[in-house]
Amino acid sequence: MTKIRNSEESSVNIELPCRIISMGKYLPNKVLSSSIEAEHGLPEGWALKFSGVEARHQVTHENVAFMGAKAAESALEKANLSIDDIDVVISANTSYDQALPNQSSLLLHLIQGGDSSRCSAFDINATCLSFVAAFNLAAEMLQHSNRKHILIVSSEVSSKNLDPSDWETLTLFGDGAAAAVIGKSLHHTSGIVKYKHDTFSEGHDKAKLLGGGISYPLNDYPWDVKLHSFKMDGKELLRLSLQYVPPFMTEFFSTLSLNWSDVDVVIPHQASKTGLNLLKKIVKLDPDKVERTLERYGNCIAASIPLTFNDAFEKGKVLEGQTCFLCGTSAGFAVGALLYKHGS
Amino acid sequence: MTKIRNSEESSVNIELPCRIISMGKYLPNKVLSSSIEAEHGLPEGWALKFSGVEARHQVTHENVAFMGAKAAESALEKANLSIDDIDVVISANTSYDQALPNQSSLLLHLIQGGDSSRCSAFDINATCLSFVAAFNLAAEMLQHSNRKHILIVSSEVSSKNLDPSDWETLTLFGDGAAAAVIGKSLHHTSGIVKYKHDTFSEGHDKAKLLGGGISYPLNDYPWDVKLHSFKMDGKELLRLSLQYVPPFMTEFFSTLSLNWSDVDVVIPHQASKTGLNLLKKIVKLDPDKVERTLERYGNCIAASIPLTFNDAFEKGKVLEGQTCFLCGTSAGFAVGALLYKHGS
Repeated sequence: MTKIRNSEESSVNIELPCRIISMGKYLPNKVLSSSIEAEHGLPEGWALKFSGVEARHQVTHENVAFMGAKAAESALEKANLSIDDIDVVISANTSYDQALPNQSSLLLHLIQGGDSSRCSAFDINATCLSFVAAFNLAAEMLQHSNRKHILIVSSEVSSKNLDPSDWETLTLFGDGAAAAVIGKSLHHTSGIVKYKHDTFSEGHDKAKLLGGGISYPLNDYPWDVKLHSFKMDGKELLRLSLQYVPPFMTEFFSTLSLNWSDVDVVIPHQASKTGLNLLKKIVKLDPDKVERTLERYGNCIAASIPLTFNDAFEKGKVLEGQTCFLCGTSAGFAVGALLYKHGS
Repeated sequence: MTKIRNSEESSVNIELPCRIISMGKYLPNKVLSSSIEAEHGLPEGWALKFSGVEARHQVTHENVAFMGAKAAESALEKANLSIDDIDVVISANTSYDQALPNQSSLLLHLIQGGDSSRCSAFDINATCLSFVAAFNLAAEMLQHSNRKHILIVSSEVSSKNLDPSDWETLTLFGDGAAAAVIGKSLHHTSGIVKYKHDTFSEGHDKAKLLGGGISYPLNDYPWDVKLHSFKMDGKELLRLSLQYVPPFMTEFFSTLSLNWSDVDVVIPHQASKTGLNLLKKIVKLDPDKVERTLERYGNCIAASIPLTFNDAFEKGKVLEGQTCFLCGTSAGFAVGALLYKHGS
């Protein structure tokens, strides 16, 4: 029997009332794993077998701001709002089109009507957990203020920073953007129940893109596929996850009146096939509750969680009164989770 | 007669109670304008006359995280706290050591004890106003939560991205870092009175560093002094400032019980000699109230405001009961201001 939740029945205590009014997404050109395998001489089926990815999307003409603006416009249209109704725009991702200005200014410029809007635009970077961190901050910013609507946009281009000789990253990552309009919860039946984000900086060098910044200035360190491509130490990331994720989750739910198995929808970061399988190791979950886009989109860095969340909304999987658990690990190394109750 | 303010007397309404517990800074090697003039063939005295800068500091062995960690350790020591007492670390700047992970993870790793601490670390980028945006967010995050202390670090390296043929930027910018520990206000006599940040993205291309990101990928656009150096259109930035700053400030103070002239300490972004002179055009201010570090440090991007604020504290210019006005314009283009009342 399906357990039906509603605001009367559910005992979860909402810490930061707010509401996801709408979400939107943008995906560039679809690229099948079979094409990548043929182009780079990988065995047929390698990508799906080892990375768990059948297809991902990759930019052709688009940049980070372009994709973000399209996702934002889609979310705004669904909310029946324009950029003039938005008080704060948060660009929540790791990719950037230029070293300066910030990505949110470039994004705002490309959103229809953005140049004449008067919102506050800034960037947040919590690597793969950027959307989750931005969602919590947006909720904080909606308490005790006149702000009404906050737009969060996560847009990532990974395809320009991949090493073709590193099959794991070559086949794992994808490009894409997703956006969310967050507003006040009128009846206090919707909002963030709990948010937790712990950084374990001993893992700062386990997933990295070394070049392009001050440590390796471009005029001294010209482009080199090793220095300027994303690198990850899969074994070490797995070790860190096994060490830190289980106690993190135990602590997360220890102060709540529900357990992980009571959550209605789980939106994990689509880190990798191994990463998603780790979830099963840590807790026995109904597979129907765990949303997956890894096979279709690959790992889209900070855009993965909102893309997966967007698709769960589109499929009608997120209903009022339900709880959604956004969680994942990220480069840095960090573990993060946010429990959201959807209401009005 | 000096007007003495205290919590009973002052009528300002604190919106977000919080308190600056301590600040700290780190400056790399000092470089006199005369040295730069001699090295690059500028007329003697050009830098001070046109940029208003007599000296700035420039990194030798340091990177962004190194300077930030030193400033953070100084602030923590003054607060008699360790990194274990910090709930959230915000890296608030435009400079980055690597493309990935985020700067705050690299920073946390270099802070003494950082690797074994369990705080939440993320980056904020609101270009030159990053510290101001982070201060407001820190205050939001301290309301209605168990968080006790938030560490904000602004560290900038500009000297690696300057075009020697562009005398204005060559002589204007400096490197440096500043940090602040923000805590709860125990007696609700301290905190943010008002914060406002408006982005006018029509100015997104008036101050920029085009290269290094997705729009100009490194493998297609190798290092080039024009593409990978900071560029600003001074005339256009002045036009935007003259158009948007006066109405912004009028609106800012329109809802408050005090005027700009009532503020005790003004901490403007040290944008440029022209930028600081603009303040005088907009409002008649007692020059003693306006803190300046431009002559000594140059424009240190997002580190300028906290460096100047740190020095005002060090000089004993910020007393309990006083109001401090942090303000400036930034690349993007944006105008921002934060009124803080210092108390206990």
